[in-house]
Amino acid sequence: MSSFPDLGSFFAPKRVAFVGATEDLSKFGGRCMRLLIDFGYRGVIYPVNPKRSELFGLKCYPSLDELPEVPDHVGIVLPSAGVPATLEACVRRGVPFATVFSAGFGETGAEEGRLLQQCAVAIARAGGLRFMGPNCNGMINFVDAFALTSTSAIKGERRSAGDIGVVSQSGGAGQINVMWRAQQAGLGISYQVSCGNDADLGLADYMAFMVESERTKVVLAIAERMPPGDKLRALAQRAAELEKPIVRVKVGRTEAGSRAAASHTGSVTGADEVSEAALRQLGIIRVEDCSELYETAMLLRGGRRPKARTAAALSVSGGNLVMVADLGAARGVEFPAYAEATQEKLKAYLPGFVGASNPTDLTSAAIGRTDTFGAVARILGEDPGVGTLVPVLTSAVAAEIRSIAQAAAETDKPVAILFTGRCIDDPGLTPEMLVAEGHAVYRDARPCMDAVAAANRYGEFRARLARPAPQRPAGMDVAAASKLLQPRTMTEAASKALLACYGLPVTKEFVARSRAEAAAAGGTVALKISSLDIPHKTEAKAIRLGLSGAEAIGRGYDEVIAAAKAYNPDARIEGVLVQQMVAGGEEVLLGVSQDPAFGPVLTAGLGGIFVEVFKDVSRRLPPVSHQEAQDMIRELRSAPIFAGARGRAPLDVDALADCIVRLSWLAVDLGGRISELDINPLRVLPAGQGVRVVDALVVGA
Amino acid sequence: MSSFPDLGSFFAPKRVAFVGATEDLSKFGGRCMRLLIDFGYRGVIYPVNPKRSELFGLKCYPSLDELPEVPDHVGIVLPSAGVPATLEACVRRGVPFATVFSAGFGETGAEEGRLLQQCAVAIARAGGLRFMGPNCNGMINFVDAFALTSTSAIKGERRSAGDIGVVSQSGGAGQINVMWRAQQAGLGISYQVSCGNDADLGLADYMAFMVESERTKVVLAIAERMPPGDKLRALAQRAAELEKPIVRVKVGRTEAGSRAAASHTGSVTGADEVSEAALRQLGIIRVEDCSELYETAMLLRGGRRPKARTAAALSVSGGNLVMVADLGAARGVEFPAYAEATQEKLKAYLPGFVGASNPTDLTSAAIGRTDTFGAVARILGEDPGVGTLVPVLTSAVAAEIRSIAQAAAETDKPVAILFTGRCIDDPGLTPEMLVAEGHAVYRDARPCMDAVAAANRYGEFRARLARPAPQRPAGMDVAAASKLLQPRTMTEAASKALLACYGLPVTKEFVARSRAEAAAAGGTVALKISSLDIPHKTEAKAIRLGLSGAEAIGRGYDEVIAAAKAYNPDARIEGVLVQQMVAGGEEVLLGVSQDPAFGPVLTAGLGGIFVEVFKDVSRRLPPVSHQEAQDMIRELRSAPIFAGARGRAPLDVDALADCIVRLSWLAVDLGGRISELDINPLRVLPAGQGVRVVDALVVGA
Repeated sequence: MSSFPDLGSFFAPKRVAFVGATEDLSKFGGRCMRLLIDFGYRGVIYPVNPKRSELFGLKCYPSLDELPEVPDHVGIVLPSAGVPATLEACVRRGVPFATVFSAGFGETGAEEGRLLQQCAVAIARAGGLRFMGPNCNGMINFVDAFALTSTSAIKGERRSAGDIGVVSQSGGAGQINVMWRAQQAGLGISYQVSCGNDADLGLADYMAFMVESERTKVVLAIAERMPPGDKLRALAQRAAELEKPIVRVKVGRTEAGSRAAASHTGSVTGADEVSEAALRQLGIIRVEDCSELYETAMLLRGGRRPKARTAAALSVSGGNLVMVADLGAARGVEFPAYAEATQEKLKAYLPGFVGASNPTDLTSAAIGRTDTFGAVARILGEDPGVGTLVPVLTSAVAAEIRSIAQAAAETDKPVAILFTGRCIDDPGLTPEMLVAEGHAVYRDARPCMDAVAAANRYGEFRARLARPAPQRPAGMDVAAASKLLQPRTMTEAASKALLACYGLPVTKEFVARSRAEAAAAGGTVALKISSLDIPHKTEAKAIRLGLSGAEAIGRGYDEVIAAAKAYNPDARIEGVLVQQMVAGGEEVLLGVSQDPAFGPVLTAGLGGIFVEVFKDVSRRLPPVSHQEAQDMIRELRSAPIFAGARGRAPLDVDALADCIVRLSWLAVDLGGRISELDINPLRVLPAGQGVRVVDALVVGA
Repeated sequence: MSSFPDLGSFFAPKRVAFVGATEDLSKFGGRCMRLLIDFGYRGVIYPVNPKRSELFGLKCYPSLDELPEVPDHVGIVLPSAGVPATLEACVRRGVPFATVFSAGFGETGAEEGRLLQQCAVAIARAGGLRFMGPNCNGMINFVDAFALTSTSAIKGERRSAGDIGVVSQSGGAGQINVMWRAQQAGLGISYQVSCGNDADLGLADYMAFMVESERTKVVLAIAERMPPGDKLRALAQRAAELEKPIVRVKVGRTEAGSRAAASHTGSVTGADEVSEAALRQLGIIRVEDCSELYETAMLLRGGRRPKARTAAALSVSGGNLVMVADLGAARGVEFPAYAEATQEKLKAYLPGFVGASNPTDLTSAAIGRTDTFGAVARILGEDPGVGTLVPVLTSAVAAEIRSIAQAAAETDKPVAILFTGRCIDDPGLTPEMLVAEGHAVYRDARPCMDAVAAANRYGEFRARLARPAPQRPAGMDVAAASKLLQPRTMTEAASKALLACYGLPVTKEFVARSRAEAAAAGGTVALKISSLDIPHKTEAKAIRLGLSGAEAIGRGYDEVIAAAKAYNPDARIEGVLVQQMVAGGEEVLLGVSQDPAFGPVLTAGLGGIFVEVFKDVSRRLPPVSHQEAQDMIRELRSAPIFAGARGRAPLDVDALADCIVRLSWLAVDLGGRISELDINPLRVLPAGQGVRVVDALVVGA
């Protein structure tokens, strides 16, 4: 994984120095030192403070230059102005890693802070030093008992290391809301990082370390910033290879990307929507709140993936089963009927039942029999139609809870246990204890079904991974297209010619330079002014539709030219585009826009009001396979219209998908030279009749 | 509140008898008896069991007839077949209330159970006895220390009474997920009921008792069944008068109502959507999960209502503030800029700031100063633009937490405290303790902002209550309409004539009985067959549009008649409807359907694909005011189209609202005699040009 640095000795240094060390616990440096010692670090600690000779019983050094050996990692808590000199000292000594806790850099928004940060980066880059921060709250390594942070969340006895990594920019949200709360819920953490401004090392570097670590099964991230698109892609690809799910919480919707996308679908292409689509495509699970991060991790860490979006729920609490079914249904989780073999096996436990329904109410059967619950769970776990098992407990006796836990441990399906109450006869048998044993246990139906839905999404991502990679369709002339692409706004005719090189079917048309040339056209045509100086043809009223016959077309030609001249007397007019009219079907919008993080992004949606009012579009990073292009159509809210809603003819989804695939390759090949590409509309005809690019606009970069 | 029984001695009997009493704690009756005694009931207990003379040290009686005095409330745990005889014994003794725990009645779905239940109801009704159940888990009265239930949730020391009432059908969900969990979170319960099958007394009766109780401030309900519409309306009205919010969780979406609404908008009018709209209109807050019930109650019980949908958030954790802002925005909560006076006052605490933004990050200012947080909260609480205050704590020292709590207690605004971590220097200062003191404290941003949004909805309901009641518009001839309404499917012409009586503007039209009559029509017209036997005119191809001139109209007449005869040779043909064509604007659908619980329900939505594919409709129980009719339009997702999206002309929303108001009164006056009414389409013309009923179908009941 060469695109990421090896952070082995950053996370687990043999020798660590701390510049700005003090014994004063009201100070950041004092709290860091105290925690570093108390957390049980087994390496060598070098406190650095020119005013002291000893700190916490450790020999203290006046400067880094005086240290008897080179530390692997240097923590720095100094007023911001003193940081560059200290980084220089690190470089002098050949220190590989530093963590700059100090604030007062780029995050202030002030010129001075920004320059200080640039200065720090320049020193590090020149000297081969890598650093975390500034303005961060450090890191915690539970695996090797190394903590360089001031957080109160690790005060007291050190928690055991677990299999979940946590990365955040902020200290509070990452260390309290995620790490500490996850531990309270019974989970264990391997590594935690609060990385601050990401001036040098960044989010993706820490996440990559965790993804590679054998001690980490799931990586959780909460950040406002997004790693650069290429880093995120590399990270996601490696995480997918190693099957280490990444779960990310959505914070701070940036509008920067939205402003950058100044096409006429600009209002739709918000950067947040782009990253949402990109993250999903890369298999990164996005959740809404910090608690959902670890609650999702609970279920994902087990490594069992649901084979289907289905679940079986069972309980003695009918009310809870209805809740689970309702909330599941709202999240795409189905509760299918059980297989006949399952029904047969259930008879021994549910004798009064004609056939058990799903969710399965055990009320009468389970009373006084603590083994029924577990036995039924085991049977349902064997049903081939069941993706995930959801046993629901309110308050129960230990034997019953244990029997469920045993069944959960034995099945090869993911199991999300909803446990809303307590153990009646053993106060020590808590949900947290079950979690510590490896189970996924939820206190409420909503987080439970949220986690099941998230695990389904990850399962579907794994299934997509197994599909063949997108293949280049035949009939794409890259060289010709590359030649046609101009570094400016292109006319409709030129834009379509470019698209035609990639095999997109465009309307039959030609640019008429005279009334006579236009009038010679047969059939029913549309006339549109062709002028680089009039990109908005409708606004200029330089369009005529549905004309046929030499007389009408000729008159239309004159009208279009006159309207264009009236609109912009200085416009250079190429001629009038004479275009075959296409009737029937529905109008679709396809586009390629530039995202500042991800580069070219593909957009598709049913045209008109659907895009304008309902913002009903799908997005993907190119290239996409035919199957994925069909997924894009299927996930539109307007999808029923493509399938032929309310007696309409089904549309040619196959041809549309082919068009999307071709456009995705165009984006791959030429995306870097395109600042905006809109096909609006693409007319999608009834099934078997194909599609036509009716209007298109390409703006070269 | 005469529509509900006085349940005073049901909830707080002076004497209680228990039929089916035993000392065997493995039995339901044993557990109930044990809990009744242990819970500290101060009245007289009469165990009834013919096989015993004493139970738990109490004198036991062979039957109800032998009791020395009449109990106020009798608990019954017997095999179902024995229940009717025991109810008869209750009647004989003049017992006012009973609770039937036994299962084996209507809930089994079997004939026998259903008959037993009917029998029980008949005995009670005849004898003036009211009973809860069957198939229930009883009730708990924390105010008077009376519990008649088997739930493990009240084992141990009795919790103090609080101000929240809980009603559920199911035992587990209501008693564990809601009651016990609310208590674990620091809340107190006044009354809890698990009412089972509701054969006699029902959900609304228990809720009404709690609404009237001075000891209850908020009522929580979780149930699959919905109280009958009239009871729910009466309950909601009383709850609104007393300002006692009702919060309800959504369980079990019934499809029964959906099937009943067999109009051509049938697929849209799901019963679940109807009850969602009705509950909102009645001020009943609907939530998704059990935990949300009590988390919403936390904020509502304080009685402070937000004056606006706005909030101010403040914290030293920037990451958490971004979360709160994101999740708030997604729930309609805005974070407005502070007033100048606020900024002025903040200067003393945030000296480095040019102007504090909202959410307010206190990072640098609050470090080492535990009073800053509280002081800033107090200032923000005084800002007139702030609806709700959201202080956010991760982990903090006691002084800081106390200063926030103090500020929360003093402001007159609702305060939702997000407290994701712990108190660093006082382990006893927990979120639960703060809740017990009366604060609303949340562990995660999502439930916190969900509660703020729910409180906003309730605040808006209170604001709607203050509006003038809907007024009857002038120009509605009820008598004439009543005369026209027929108890069957009516023709388009007759349907429109009925609507015209209520002042709805219909297209100019007449039924032509001959070609000559039709041909005499001027202008551009549509022709439609008028026959009761051909309700689907389009399917019969017996429609012609956009005809003008005697020749074309005459030919059209013949074609329509011919098509109708071909479609249905036996159809009785009234003639051909000759109708003025209306162009421009957009098509809207209005309807009145019958909901099994609520009676007539009003539906409005933009026509065509919006209703068909996006199910984009608003619903109300009639009557509605002009303002509420406008709200209906505003809350449609397609609302931007009415306002004139993307260069379209704004539509005549005022005329549309007037139409909705008139239709709502028609539903009030004649709703009971209408099984279905559809105006599809109503053409809404550009602003100032009004609306026209283009097609309508009334089906009388």
